[in-house]
Order: sequence, then structure tokens, then C-alpha cells
Amino acid sequence: MSSNDTAAEANTIQLLEAPSVQALVKQVRAQDTYGFYKNWSDDLILKPFIIDRRERRKISIEGEVDPATKNRIDLFYRAIASRIEQETGPVVQVVIEVNHEGFGWALVFCGRLLLVTRSLRDAHRFGFDSLEKLALEAEKLTQAGIKLAKDYPEVYKL
Amino acid sequence: MSSNDTAAEANTIQLLEAPSVQALVKQVRAQDTYGFYKNWSDDLILKPFIIDRRERRKISIEGEVDPATKNRIDLFYRAIASRIEQETGPVVQVVIEVNHEGFGWALVFCGRLLLVTRSLRDAHRFGFDSLEKLALEAEKLTQAGIKLAKDYPEVYKL
Repeated sequence: MSSNDTAAEANTIQLLEAPSVQALVKQVRAQDTYGFYKNWSDDLILKPFIIDRRERRKISIEGEVDPATKNRIDLFYRAIASRIEQETGPVVQVVIEVNHEGFGWALVFCGRLLLVTRSLRDAHRFGFDSLEKLALEAEKLTQAGIKLAKDYPEVYKL
Repeated sequence: MSSNDTAAEANTIQLLEAPSVQALVKQVRAQDTYGFYKNWSDDLILKPFIIDRRERRKISIEGEVDPATKNRIDLFYRAIASRIEQETGPVVQVVIEVNHEGFGWALVFCGRLLLVTRSLRDAHRFGFDSLEKLALEAEKLTQAGIKLAKDYPEVYKL
């Protein structure tokens, strides 16, 4: 094993421990009522979320979005919602709307305040280039959501 | 024709002219790209929105929500969004999410502010007891949305 490989592996281990990534792992495991993933590593559980650009492009955007993909979009935003909830208290809601063409919205809200508003395109191809990108994106959205909740507490609690 | 009937008819004509009802008629006609409803009265166009309690109960809540029903939910909230837009300026978005069990959310928002948040139940049975109830409900939601937009202009424009 080269030192590069070792460094990459150490990086992955560190990333897997990031709060945003752990929140997502927790969401996936919470859904696993039959214990199917019980013996799976976190890394393996998150594999379907990581699809590099070239692979993504191979996924057809015709027809309905695969329910498994839609579920992953849902889990990703639920993980963000759960972290905002931990910081701020009240229950945070997630609404994912995807139409037949893969367009739609990912909304995370509490009271009358929208904490995350993401318009979705090509939802069929939902995925991240790397675990690092996933972690960064989740962290960015989480922090922006927490900031909004703190900036507008009145609207948040409406 | 009894005087009661005449009174009811006059009432219907008046209701059909209410801004909330006209906004809905406009939404339905806007969708009518093939001019199918061209010669239909407003009253007839709105018929599918009026289902009395007894009739509603007969609609099965098993299986997917009928796409035509989902479309009507969408039109109803789009009509509200269009009226808020007219009052306040910026583009108002509508997101309807209905799951297989007929549960979901109707959200109308602008910027980071949610103007309407309605949780949906038994969406299969969406409809109003009377044109009057439809008009009242639409008006109530519209006015509440406009008030929110005016109360929190900063969040509305985020």
C-alpha cells in the first residue's frame, strides 16, 4: 500500500466521523427496520450516495425517478434537518417534491421559516462526486439553516 | 322557481365573482391549452372542486391519489399564490407533496418565508362542501399569506 493510499484511507475515516456524515448514516440505519445493514460499515452504507460525474451521466433521466434515488434525496435532507433540530430545538420538517422530469424542490422548514430551499434538477442522477463533497455540502446547508433559525427566531417559532 | 332558488342562484353568481374564486378559474383556464373549457361557464369549471361531505366519504383512500385530484390541489394553492404575488410583487412558489397514503404538505412560499403551510390528509378526497366554503378558505389563506409577507419583508425577500 502506497503512502498515498494510506493518506486517502485516513481521510475517509476522518470524513466518516464528520457530524454531517454521521447524521446521514443515522438516517439510513433508522430506516433499516429489518437490520439488513446491521453488519455493514458506514462507508458501505453511504456508497449509493457517491456517484462520480461520469457515472452520473450514464444514468437515464427518462421516466420516473427511481424510488431508491428519491429516498436518498429524502434521507440527505432529513439528516440536515435532524442536525438543525439538535441545535435549535423545535421539530424541523422536510418536503421533497420531484416531478416526472426529475425537477422539483427540497425544502427544510420550521414554523414559517425555510431553512433550506433547493431546486432539484435531474433528480434521477442525485449523488455526490466524493464523500468529501457530500460532507461539505451537508455541512454548508446545515450551518446556513442554523444561522437562519437564529437570525429569525420569531418566524422560526410561528 | 322558488324565491329560495333565486336567492341561491344570486348568491352563486356573487361568489363566482369573488377574487379568490376568479383566481382559481383563471388557473384552470390557463392550463386549458387545447381550449377544451372555452365554452364552459366558470361554475361548470369549478364543479370538480365542490364535493359534499357524503360524496367525499365515498371516494376510496386506497392506492395512489388520482392525478386529476392532485392537479386540483395544485391549482387551488396556485390560485392563492397568484393573488399573494399580485399584492406583494415577487414570484411565489407552490410545492405540493402527497404520498401514497394521501398525506402530505401544501406549501406556498417566497424567499425564505412560508406563506401557507397546510398538512394534507386524505388528499384523495380533496374538495369543498360548497363554492362558499371554497371561496372563504381561499380568501382566508390569501389574506394570512399577504399579512405574513408584510410582517416579515426581510425574510420574504431573502
